[in-house]
Amino acid sequence: MNEQSRIDEAMLAQAIAAIRPPDAEATAAAIHRHDQLTKPRGSLGRLELLGVQLAGIQRRALPAVEQPLIVVAAGDHGITEEGVSAYPSEVTGQMLANFLSGGAAINVLAAAAGASLLVLDAGSHAALGEQPGLRVRRVRAGTRNFAREPAMTRAEALAAIAFGIEIASEEAARGVDLLAVGEMGIGNTTSASALIAALTNRPPEEVTGRGTGIDDASWANKCRIISAALDLHRPDPDDGLGALASVGGFEIAALVGLIIGGARAGVPVLLDGFICGAAALVADRIAPGVRPYLIAGHRSVEPGHRIMLDTLALDPLLALDLRLGEGSGAALAIPLVRAAARVLCEMATFESASVSRGEA
Amino acid sequence: MNEQSRIDEAMLAQAIAAIRPPDAEATAAAIHRHDQLTKPRGSLGRLELLGVQLAGIQRRALPAVEQPLIVVAAGDHGITEEGVSAYPSEVTGQMLANFLSGGAAINVLAAAAGASLLVLDAGSHAALGEQPGLRVRRVRAGTRNFAREPAMTRAEALAAIAFGIEIASEEAARGVDLLAVGEMGIGNTTSASALIAALTNRPPEEVTGRGTGIDDASWANKCRIISAALDLHRPDPDDGLGALASVGGFEIAALVGLIIGGARAGVPVLLDGFICGAAALVADRIAPGVRPYLIAGHRSVEPGHRIMLDTLALDPLLALDLRLGEGSGAALAIPLVRAAARVLCEMATFESASVSRGEA
Repeated sequence: MNEQSRIDEAMLAQAIAAIRPPDAEATAAAIHRHDQLTKPRGSLGRLELLGVQLAGIQRRALPAVEQPLIVVAAGDHGITEEGVSAYPSEVTGQMLANFLSGGAAINVLAAAAGASLLVLDAGSHAALGEQPGLRVRRVRAGTRNFAREPAMTRAEALAAIAFGIEIASEEAARGVDLLAVGEMGIGNTTSASALIAALTNRPPEEVTGRGTGIDDASWANKCRIISAALDLHRPDPDDGLGALASVGGFEIAALVGLIIGGARAGVPVLLDGFICGAAALVADRIAPGVRPYLIAGHRSVEPGHRIMLDTLALDPLLALDLRLGEGSGAALAIPLVRAAARVLCEMATFESASVSRGEA
Repeated sequence: MNEQSRIDEAMLAQAIAAIRPPDAEATAAAIHRHDQLTKPRGSLGRLELLGVQLAGIQRRALPAVEQPLIVVAAGDHGITEEGVSAYPSEVTGQMLANFLSGGAAINVLAAAAGASLLVLDAGSHAALGEQPGLRVRRVRAGTRNFAREPAMTRAEALAAIAFGIEIASEEAARGVDLLAVGEMGIGNTTSASALIAALTNRPPEEVTGRGTGIDDASWANKCRIISAALDLHRPDPDDGLGALASVGGFEIAALVGLIIGGARAGVPVLLDGFICGAAALVADRIAPGVRPYLIAGHRSVEPGHRIMLDTLALDPLLALDLRLGEGSGAALAIPLVRAAARVLCEMATFESASVSRGEA
């Protein structure tokens, strides 16, 4: 692992250093253009703000969302030994197979959004080989049980981050102009809750929800486990990588890499709900330059999500009471992001359409 | 007008009598199917509720949104004489021309949503002839100034409603499976505020906003005008048609007809923001059977919209701070409605995909 981790630490530092702030000129040009378009100034609300953000990120006044890609990162969690999930760990692998055969919600939502789908196995128990639509770098067959020991070594966490960075770079080079991210990993709401508690200094009860569906007793158990784990590992809130290694997961680490890699490549990153939010919080702690590249797709019903969103000053485009993951909320938000880009590119100006301007 | 209005009153009564409740069997079948699909029960939240609603409306367990149509109804308002809008009345006609040449926001958003667009001139000052994409039944060149006299006669209001019903019927017969509605009419937020105040017994200050953009003094003026008009006409809250004739508009009446016609034809009606909300309130008062056919696309920033939504127990899919109209919020919501239908039709079941069910 040593050789690998040295390479990855160097890669990470390089990637972080290469993240530029969004382009001020393109941002200003998009703001100016919005005010020429045949609509009352600002009347498209958040769609206009989104268009301006896309322009800055893509460094052009007329942004495009023509090749959106949804990347679903998967991993298994040792913490499931503690009975934190309503589903058994095997479901991670079963759902990976379902993604590849096209029957999951994310397949339908990706098709409906006109987006491609790529699945990453960053560390599941499943032993699926690489195949169309699946990239495999199983750093380990699931994390360790963080109730007893760190979920990952720092080197393992870095390897999964590096995987995400590489995928984001490759896909950006292929022309992907919007990177929507999602995840699959039985047990990962426990991991994400622990990460958000660790990085925002909140008590576990405030950030922990019911995942895909557990009862009161299981919820209390989940909070107790997170609380005990934080006492055990005492993660430093300023050390995103350390917190990630202690209580995170391989798919969360891969998501951190996708976010950093997307930002470095100048590609907007559209986040799904709670788990992706935890990854964004880690990415922001490691590489604060990523923040302007983030778009929140969906407000999760998990209570920790709002805390995470407030911390990163993100306001989700949708709030549809989803609690599925898989990138479902990000997929549903893709048409909004595409529409924001198209408004800037395709609407007529007051002058070209001979429409009178208002007094306002 | 007498002959016309007798025909229309008969048509309206017939249309209302022909609205059926959504199909209980299809509704139950969709609920059952959701629980077989490879996702935790209920985890797609509002998307599942929407799919079930579509199934009931379309009377089939596997609903489809393959031919969505956006209909934008237009009309001019005599009340603009009172200086209630930031834009001059000419803009209604200019924007109609912009819709037809493809440069408006709704053209871009319709294309982005994969929807067709049809514009109805129910009573503008513009004298555009019928042409591809435009149907004209100008009941009158704009309403009368309702600060001084009723905006329309009951017969005129009925004629515009009949126009909407006919269009909805024709388009449903052509295979349209989702009717998204929007509007254009300088001055129409004043008309809609007055209608909502009249039909919900709220003071004008509570339901009146700033339309496409007016200052404090203009807002106070707008409230005073509405208040005085309600004192003048004293519309009966139980008489939707009377209230519509007193302070409504031709495009609002056409929207009422589109809603009634859509419901009668078993087509879900996706509402844009504030003005469409006022039309929905009128439609519900005239024909309470329409309510289960309504889907709210967008929560407007106009304060009266929330009151209207609460009254009809509607919860909008989007809240993007739009204040444009034109059907923009409905257009942006179309992909969500389409996705809700596709989830029901295309996802694998636990059995077909060999995925373990959770304990929950």
